[in-house]
Amino acid sequence: MNVLAIGAHPDDIEISCAGTLAKLVKAGHQVTICHASDGDKGHYRIPPEELIPIRQREARQAGAIIGSEVISLGMRDGNILADHEGNRQMFIDMLCRVQPDMVITHTPNDYMPDHLSVSKLVFDTTFLATLPKASKQYPNCAKVPSLFYMDNLSGLDFQPTLYVDITETMETKTEMLRQHQSQLVWLKEHDNVDVVDMMVTLGKFRGVQAGCTFAEGFIQHMVWTRPNAVRFPV
Amino acid sequence: MNVLAIGAHPDDIEISCAGTLAKLVKAGHQVTICHASDGDKGHYRIPPEELIPIRQREARQAGAIIGSEVISLGMRDGNILADHEGNRQMFIDMLCRVQPDMVITHTPNDYMPDHLSVSKLVFDTTFLATLPKASKQYPNCAKVPSLFYMDNLSGLDFQPTLYVDITETMETKTEMLRQHQSQLVWLKEHDNVDVVDMMVTLGKFRGVQAGCTFAEGFIQHMVWTRPNAVRFPV
Amino acid sequence: MNVLAIGAHPDDIEISCAGTLAKLVKAGHQVTICHASDGDKGHYRIPPEELIPIRQREARQAGAIIGSEVISLGMRDGNILADHEGNRQMFIDMLCRVQPDMVITHTPNDYMPDHLSVSKLVFDTTFLATLPKASKQYPNCAKVPSLFYMDNLSGLDFQPTLYVDITETMETKTEMLRQHQSQLVWLKEHDNVDVVDMMVTLGKFRGVQAGCTFAEGFIQHMVWTRPNAVRFPV
Amino acid sequence: MNVLAIGAHPDDIEISCAGTLAKLVKAGHQVTICHASDGDKGHYRIPPEELIPIRQREARQAGAIIGSEVISLGMRDGNILADHEGNRQMFIDMLCRVQPDMVITHTPNDYMPDHLSVSKLVFDTTFLATLPKASKQYPNCAKVPSLFYMDNLSGLDFQPTLYVDITETMETKTEMLRQHQSQLVWLKEHDNVDVVDMMVTLGKFRGVQAGCTFAEGFIQHMVWTRPNAVRFPV
Amino acid sequence: MNVLAIGAHPDDIEISCAGTLAKLVKAGHQVTICHASDGDKGHYRIPPEELIPIRQREARQAGAIIGSEVISLGMRDGNILADHEGNRQMFIDMLCRVQPDMVITHTPNDYMPDHLSVSKLVFDTTFLATLPKASKQYPNCAKVPSLFYMDNLSGLDFQPTLYVDITETMETKTEMLRQHQSQLVWLKEHDNVDVVDMMVTLGKFRGVQAGCTFAEGFIQHMVWTRPNAVRFPV
Amino acid sequence: MNVLAIGAHPDDIEISCAGTLAKLVKAGHQVTICHASDGDKGHYRIPPEELIPIRQREARQAGAIIGSEVISLGMRDGNILADHEGNRQMFIDMLCRVQPDMVITHTPNDYMPDHLSVSKLVFDTTFLATLPKASKQYPNCAKVPSLFYMDNLSGLDFQPTLYVDITETMETKTEMLRQHQSQLVWLKEHDNVDVVDMMVTLGKFRGVQAGCTFAEGFIQHMVWTRPNAVRFPV
Repeated sequence: MNVLAIGAHPDDIEISCAGTLAKLVKAGHQVTICHASDGDKGHYRIPPEELIPIRQREARQAGAIIGSEVISLGMRDGNILADHEGNRQMFIDMLCRVQPDMVITHTPNDYMPDHLSVSKLVFDTTFLATLPKASKQYPNCAKVPSLFYMDNLSGLDFQPTLYVDITETMETKTEMLRQHQSQLVWLKEHDNVDVVDMMVTLGKFRGVQAGCTFAEGFIQHMVWTRPNAVRFPV
Repeated sequence: MNVLAIGAHPDDIEISCAGTLAKLVKAGHQVTICHASDGDKGHYRIPPEELIPIRQREARQAGAIIGSEVISLGMRDGNILADHEGNRQMFIDMLCRVQPDMVITHTPNDYMPDHLSVSKLVFDTTFLATLPKASKQYPNCAKVPSLFYMDNLSGLDFQPTLYVDITETMETKTEMLRQHQSQLVWLKEHDNVDVVDMMVTLGKFRGVQAGCTFAEGFIQHMVWTRPNAVRFPV
Repeated sequence: MNVLAIGAHPDDIEISCAGTLAKLVKAGHQVTICHASDGDKGHYRIPPEELIPIRQREARQAGAIIGSEVISLGMRDGNILADHEGNRQMFIDMLCRVQPDMVITHTPNDYMPDHLSVSKLVFDTTFLATLPKASKQYPNCAKVPSLFYMDNLSGLDFQPTLYVDITETMETKTEMLRQHQSQLVWLKEHDNVDVVDMMVTLGKFRGVQAGCTFAEGFIQHMVWTRPNAVRFPV
Repeated sequence: MNVLAIGAHPDDIEISCAGTLAKLVKAGHQVTICHASDGDKGHYRIPPEELIPIRQREARQAGAIIGSEVISLGMRDGNILADHEGNRQMFIDMLCRVQPDMVITHTPNDYMPDHLSVSKLVFDTTFLATLPKASKQYPNCAKVPSLFYMDNLSGLDFQPTLYVDITETMETKTEMLRQHQSQLVWLKEHDNVDVVDMMVTLGKFRGVQAGCTFAEGFIQHMVWTRPNAVRFPV
Repeated sequence: MNVLAIGAHPDDIEISCAGTLAKLVKAGHQVTICHASDGDKGHYRIPPEELIPIRQREARQAGAIIGSEVISLGMRDGNILADHEGNRQMFIDMLCRVQPDMVITHTPNDYMPDHLSVSKLVFDTTFLATLPKASKQYPNCAKVPSLFYMDNLSGLDFQPTLYVDITETMETKTEMLRQHQSQLVWLKEHDNVDVVDMMVTLGKFRGVQAGCTFAEGFIQHMVWTRPNAVRFPV
Repeated sequence: MNVLAIGAHPDDIEISCAGTLAKLVKAGHQVTICHASDGDKGHYRIPPEELIPIRQREARQAGAIIGSEVISLGMRDGNILADHEGNRQMFIDMLCRVQPDMVITHTPNDYMPDHLSVSKLVFDTTFLATLPKASKQYPNCAKVPSLFYMDNLSGLDFQPTLYVDITETMETKTEMLRQHQSQLVWLKEHDNVDVVDMMVTLGKFRGVQAGCTFAEGFIQHMVWTRPNAVRFPV
């Protein structure tokens, strides 16, 4: 399968679903990671123009660990609007290039606006990308992909309908997250958390719920024209 | 009663609520059908400029079967944004012209973005159209109409709070849907369904739930300033 | 229609749906009121053996105002268990005698156990009463009736799917409730409320929601084999 | 895997999950079917003592089509109470004999009381059967099995979290259901439905939702100590 | 604590949470009131340019009763879009000035679009205001505040998770609402309600639910990075 | 305040709410712990008659750490039925003795039947205990207490509406749980978990959600006649 994971910022994918992505790669599936923003405001001291290349490099390093291509759409933190034609077109073009069978993204009830906008943009454009001439650069998507929402960072009001046992890839996931060195600082200062520790806690907690050591949780968004009977492949 | 059914594209109304509209007309109510878009992208081979007049004619033929006026707002497929002043004004002007007592439209959890945008635009503008000088062309609406969401095409996550027994008008509904010849092709190619068969299946299924042969399901959106104690008239 | 309202104690029906019952009677429908218990523990000073005939008389007086038969099943306050064959049989016999088209009772998320047990007993036995030889005294019920849950006394976690405008019968409802003189004392002492004032407040509040002066709210429990497409008759 | 499907009456399993069971058998899994009651009241003219052997034979014939053992617990229609020690013990003994990895049963919001009681008995006893000395006849269950609720007959208020594409076994399912000749009569008389037609409609409808021709829907009940990360095996 | 209450129009705060604000002030907390719009369309006869200063004065008078600063963002009725960069910036600047610990605003399922837009703008910008250089005029917010949604005007589909007993400040609340003389006319003409009577009814109803004479209800929106374990201070 | 925590088995209270109980005691409130069962089946090798005194001693030791009285109702594991008059009376008598202002117990959607039965028994009897002559041994309860459901062991489908920061009492909680030495073995063998580690993970996870180091989560069950506006006292 061709799986595409789309987050708002570099590191969102690593925190919430990298264990599953690593497992998918091990099982022979193709995985692409996309970030809408370069994460330009994710630091109190490093200014945006310096921060962007740092975070692009961190994201590429993380993706390289599982051999995934990493795409950035070049948006700006705090500026991702969902009801916006230009943003829709950028998502459509990217989707038409990747042609995913399955897409993972933020849940619509996540904690901050960029996540919410990306969630809605993904829902909207995974359908729109199948319309005739959706993209000027690429052929339209051959089908509407299945859609999975990943855990928000705290599990608040998020009851998974699907668990993936990531015990075997937890180490890889941790290594991927550690590439985002700049964010270990930011999340400590902005949110007072050690993000690696928080990710491990969430992984153990989902493991308790799922009956294994570490797990990631997802909610499948089942709407019409999507292949809802296809079983998650790992 | 003056009933207005608003869909995103020509054929949406026919699939989801034409049996109820036919029954309303038989009971002496006035019914108007409105499509936000002309459905310009609903074909893989016929280009938009050719498709638009075809679909307008199909929609008028369908409406003519029950004697309903059919209004198109002339928007474009995939381009209907909800948080957009121009779109709001087009809806307000149309509402001020029709002055409905009751409005039927897409549910907020439908399957594709145009449906979602129309749902929100209808919710927003059925209120806004009652404000002073809401429209430059028509007097403001005399009241906020009651609001009903029609079934999405697949019934996914849609539990009706109201059923209408459409056994007596099922034939009329089918005839109305058959006018949309261009879409019988499109839905076969894009979604791999025979839309008439799918509509009949949904009608039978809602009939099983309702205790009759064929039914349509709706969810009433009860919010303040709407006449929520008024019983659905058929 | 033949409508049956079943409450746990005398006065429950009056508080939550007497306005609707009065309106049904005015519209020509037949209405029967049933209480599972005689309300023997509803007083701190009057002992059960004295209280029972007082409450029976109050209930009959209330029913007489709208010309309804009042049935008591003779159970005891605080002792109504749902998973109990004997209690089921008492409900089945009563249902087979009344042969209702529509039943109104407590909501499954009401505030005290007798209400919850009656709610479940009604759900269970309105189906069971249609089985062959369900009752030894009466023919089995000819059909499974439609089922509506009335407002709990406080509206907590109760969002009606149906409103009945009771402005025209509010006075009758108040008069019916006032027959339960013993409970005006009990509810003041046990719950620190003036129950008439509380009922009026709830009626006005539901009226605000429904767009009229006074209303009562209901939730229709739609499950299979019930006539869910039949419109509430007032 | 060792899969156990538990229904209240003969034919419940066939209507709601036989397509999935047939698919599980084809994939090499072991499938056992259990009915709590012999269905003694499922006919208006044939008396219970005559009906029981008829229905037992029908159930065995249906199970034989996919080579499944069919177990009856010998309870009586309309008499299955959940909060009952004797009934719990009968379920525990049966579970300890079968030792299932996965159990399928009625949903807690189904339409009639026997279904609800069986649903709760299964939930309760799949845990209790793992306690020391749970059964006097068999060793206690080695683990708490995963738990799936099958569609109620009408899909009312039932939104699957899991779809199984049963296109390939739809014919087998229909053949299994047709073994229950006595119920084709009963459901026509009691509920005014052609149960085969109703089952096909529900199958097509779930197929529309799932993106295939015929499907069955399930809700996984995820609670602690169950293997929630294990993927459904077909 | 530094508490900020944000409504779409002058009088929204008074109707839904002024009793709580008055109680907070009495307990020594600092309270600021903000209205997005000046309420320019809230009258059928007084034109906007005349109405705006009237409503600004009414709002200031209401705030003065509890000694609260009243801020208007100068938007226009019916024109408040949520997915709009300019509107976001106005909210961010205001938040950076006030630096609230706790924010109260409209619920996302309120009855009219301005309320919904303000609710989303508050959710979005209380996070965005903490990013580096969020505002050009003020330092970024030091933390993401806790977030509470106030009752919509009718309680429809609004089940509070928090009740504040406002018996002691009900008189103050009523006095604050009475300052909005222009709206007593408007709500009578547009919505056919006596808004003071409606507010008292809602207050009594929430009191019944909460076990006191008058109450206001709130729903806490718990998402990550907000101080969700901090108890509401009155 | 007089707080009563009621669990099905010894150790349930320690796992889910001992941090809050310890904090309540520190703040000067009175705390009583009650277990319905002595936990006689909580071991594969130690037989019930030997296990009971062991578990009673463990429970008393745990309670002694915070100076709480520990009450056992002497029921048996797996045998706690909710719809049972004898069980109701045992709960009523205990409640009338303790006269609690606030009660904490299992959530109705917990993972095993004893927990569910206790949850329903507590809901039912905290009301019934206020009726005249509810208990033969003690005066009836003076009021219906407020009711809080504690976290189930895995957080599955449990979204707290209330968080208590237990960072300061986490050490005490751990010490209390460690008294249940027999269960450290049982939960390892039956459920394959290190219960102390699991409890710490849940505490950290709820802390992430609440914005502190360790937290416990609760859901307040708000129904009529309970003091819902009273703030949780720590």
